[in-house]
Amino acid sequence: MTGGRGTAERGAGERRTRRKAEASTGVPQPPWGPIRNPMPPLELLDEDGLRRIDDTALRVLEELGIEFLNDAALDVFEKAGCRVDRSTKLVRFERGMVRETVARAPRTFRLHARNPERTLVIGDNTINVGPVGSPPNVSDLDRGRRPGTFADLTNLIKLNQMLTCVHHSGGTLVEALDLPADSRHLDLYRAHTFLSDRCFIGRGIGRERILDAIEVICIARGITREQLMAEPSLFTVINVNSPRRVDREMIGGLMAMTEHGQPCIVTPFTLAGAMSPVTIAGALAQQTAEGLAVITLIQLLRPGTPVMFGGFTSNVDMKSGAPAFGTPEYVRATIIGGQIARRWGLPYRSSNVNASNCVDAQSTHESAMSVWACIMSHTHFMHHGTGWLEGGLVASFEKVIVDAEILHSMRAWLSPLDLSDDALAFEALKEVPPGGHFFGATHTMARYEHAFHTHLIADWRNFQSWQEAGSLTATQRANVVWKKLLESYVEPPLDPARKEAIDAYVARRKSEIGQRGIL
Amino acid sequence: MTGGRGTAERGAGERRTRRKAEASTGVPQPPWGPIRNPMPPLELLDEDGLRRIDDTALRVLEELGIEFLNDAALDVFEKAGCRVDRSTKLVRFERGMVRETVARAPRTFRLHARNPERTLVIGDNTINVGPVGSPPNVSDLDRGRRPGTFADLTNLIKLNQMLTCVHHSGGTLVEALDLPADSRHLDLYRAHTFLSDRCFIGRGIGRERILDAIEVICIARGITREQLMAEPSLFTVINVNSPRRVDREMIGGLMAMTEHGQPCIVTPFTLAGAMSPVTIAGALAQQTAEGLAVITLIQLLRPGTPVMFGGFTSNVDMKSGAPAFGTPEYVRATIIGGQIARRWGLPYRSSNVNASNCVDAQSTHESAMSVWACIMSHTHFMHHGTGWLEGGLVASFEKVIVDAEILHSMRAWLSPLDLSDDALAFEALKEVPPGGHFFGATHTMARYEHAFHTHLIADWRNFQSWQEAGSLTATQRANVVWKKLLESYVEPPLDPARKEAIDAYVARRKSEIGQRGIL
Repeated sequence: MTGGRGTAERGAGERRTRRKAEASTGVPQPPWGPIRNPMPPLELLDEDGLRRIDDTALRVLEELGIEFLNDAALDVFEKAGCRVDRSTKLVRFERGMVRETVARAPRTFRLHARNPERTLVIGDNTINVGPVGSPPNVSDLDRGRRPGTFADLTNLIKLNQMLTCVHHSGGTLVEALDLPADSRHLDLYRAHTFLSDRCFIGRGIGRERILDAIEVICIARGITREQLMAEPSLFTVINVNSPRRVDREMIGGLMAMTEHGQPCIVTPFTLAGAMSPVTIAGALAQQTAEGLAVITLIQLLRPGTPVMFGGFTSNVDMKSGAPAFGTPEYVRATIIGGQIARRWGLPYRSSNVNASNCVDAQSTHESAMSVWACIMSHTHFMHHGTGWLEGGLVASFEKVIVDAEILHSMRAWLSPLDLSDDALAFEALKEVPPGGHFFGATHTMARYEHAFHTHLIADWRNFQSWQEAGSLTATQRANVVWKKLLESYVEPPLDPARKEAIDAYVARRKSEIGQRGIL
Repeated sequence: MTGGRGTAERGAGERRTRRKAEASTGVPQPPWGPIRNPMPPLELLDEDGLRRIDDTALRVLEELGIEFLNDAALDVFEKAGCRVDRSTKLVRFERGMVRETVARAPRTFRLHARNPERTLVIGDNTINVGPVGSPPNVSDLDRGRRPGTFADLTNLIKLNQMLTCVHHSGGTLVEALDLPADSRHLDLYRAHTFLSDRCFIGRGIGRERILDAIEVICIARGITREQLMAEPSLFTVINVNSPRRVDREMIGGLMAMTEHGQPCIVTPFTLAGAMSPVTIAGALAQQTAEGLAVITLIQLLRPGTPVMFGGFTSNVDMKSGAPAFGTPEYVRATIIGGQIARRWGLPYRSSNVNASNCVDAQSTHESAMSVWACIMSHTHFMHHGTGWLEGGLVASFEKVIVDAEILHSMRAWLSPLDLSDDALAFEALKEVPPGGHFFGATHTMARYEHAFHTHLIADWRNFQSWQEAGSLTATQRANVVWKKLLESYVEPPLDPARKEAIDAYVARRKSEIGQRGIL
């Protein structure tokens, strides 16, 4: 990870871009770019430990089976030689077949955005971040906690679009509860496409919502479905209804995605003590079994379709029965989940999560635990990367900014360190005498303005100055920052003809759905 | 890191201890024990990068030299063949001699507490935590920020003694500004010895304060100075007055420590942009040079004396000139500092630091960055592990608890994972049907009470319950917890005869110092 001289030159270009970004928003940020972890991922378990979890998972697949509530899926499994019980809808898998089938999935792939500069590499040591998904509520310091609306949703999309540490526009950043449930997804797709130039997540509940997403993306990118197949754009999250059940609607979404070559993020919801055994080893065995079963279905449907293995194992709080996140159990599960995904040659999804009721030391501690676990385990897509609060029940505007502070910091320390002769500063060390200081040194004067990472909300003034300025906490400063960013939001350019075509499509589909409901 | 069956058995013992601890304090904690990182330390720089920093450091030692403001030290260096300039007091070192001399320091050693159960291993993959050191102010939510007193100091010692994630009693947890400066150290040593059964830090400013610490420890342990030499107990922090100056008083402390075989923590204060070059590479080269120069002195004075390499490189905030901590620069410097210490075969000290003005999302984010960096780089002694706020100007009671939450969490996820057949839970997975839940499963019922890590301040109740209970933030809950812990404080046993002897020694020394001042 030696930077050498090239880094210093790149640095100058980055500084110019940063100055430009800062001038337009008043909020300093480094240029957009992925997080790259130059170190190998953490290996918390040894080979023997991993094998014990994998073996248990394969035993679950062989002996207990997974329930698939969809006849077409059962047909596919039967054709592939699985033992299918039509009455219980349980599918049992032979382990050799699972290994062979899952091996067809690519280890790495690209996810193409309508702005080619926002195209993502999914795999290797690249960590991509998307915002919070699916909370019913929204919150900020001015208006408090309340049910989500379409206005909140668009503000959250815009705010994340302004952040250079967010790589993906996400899905339902908050539920637009003021819109009809059957056609809400159309407004969502239109909003992502118009307000962001990044990829987004389609709603994987049933086939029809996925087909709508595919249509909107093809119009926005000006491409055919064949080209989309070769250059995937769309993610969807396929949750397993743990334990061991895959719902009909999820399979419908999965099939529509797979037919079009679009990658599913297969994520069992294995909350230890609730939907999974109360032990992390047991929950991980279950997560592995469920994930592999669904990925096997995808690779049987269309071999080679890109896919991600999603880890979401955490634990419940045994006092209240509530889900807990960012716990030691979550860190372990995230890191070991990454090891298991690598064993199976699959890109890995995980999340930045916490279960605090407000943006405080708890939410920050739990999020920091989650983010470090994600990045140290080479999580290729960090879902819920910004704004998630209260175990996913709330999207918080201030939390978006606190998370961005964490993510920017992580990216900064992982980026190449300048180790040029100039950076090693022997001449500066020679210039300043023992007991002196470097404030006025030539070396310092030439680079002090952009020597260090700039922060969104950190306040390092002395106590008196901070007190005179109103003793604002970081959460209160985050409130100021998200408003500044929203005020300076600029819509990314999109060909007006494509916009019109999307509007027409959305209008036509809304009318269809209005007449007959969603299928 | 496979736990296997042994872990389950150990687990039962730990649970009993935990239940006992919980019953007496109302605050659940795991038993006392070090943090062990089972994974190799992070390697952020490659060999070439490390060599570039080391080479620059050695060039500084050879060409520029380090100022030692103490004639006895200059004599030692001259005798060892260094180029000593008596007029400037600059010592220049030949790199071969530095390598050979530093190599005499042990890679690992034990630090013996008066309670043998609290003896620490310094080295390998063991991370020991000590509390905040040296702030002039103290703060809590009830009484706000104020100058420190002896009452605050003793409360902080007691509070940390109650925490099972703190391994060392620290030094000046806050300055007792209500006591005379010349004899304050005697009250400090007495307080540590009576109120804690762990090791403490002596004040390394001048010879006399160190000799007092050594005397108090020998009485407390009931041992001779010869035994103390063989079984060191005392740390002191020797700061370099960066750049490139080592003060007379520091050398006095260092010499007294070394004569008695007690380990110094040699810590340059290399704040990039102030006392060091504005680049992290330059600041690290300087830290390495300064650290090696002082460690060379120690190993010349008494070859084989245990010593620690201290890293404290951070950056200033270029807007305000104030020190910033827990920044990306700090994380890099901490991890690379660990790599450099390992290259030189030396145990490593680093810190849990932040520069926020209150206990909020900023302090938690910066502390989390620091703690992860410490633990991932195998920091053998984490100074300022609990309670540090405002760049070290304040010891905060609430921050002690937030930091303990972080430290307990880190220790928990790094401890061995139970991978027994029982934990892998195949039978439980068999028991619960698809779409069911594990709340009532036999496997869950048998272990739910102690299945997961227990937390100090996390609140995972739903929003309504949390709101009805007063909408307390984590910082407010920390206020409740530190009071509970202080209320349930019990003084660790110490032979009354030894207590009397310490009291007599302290009284005699205070009278001496009262007559002639401290030397």
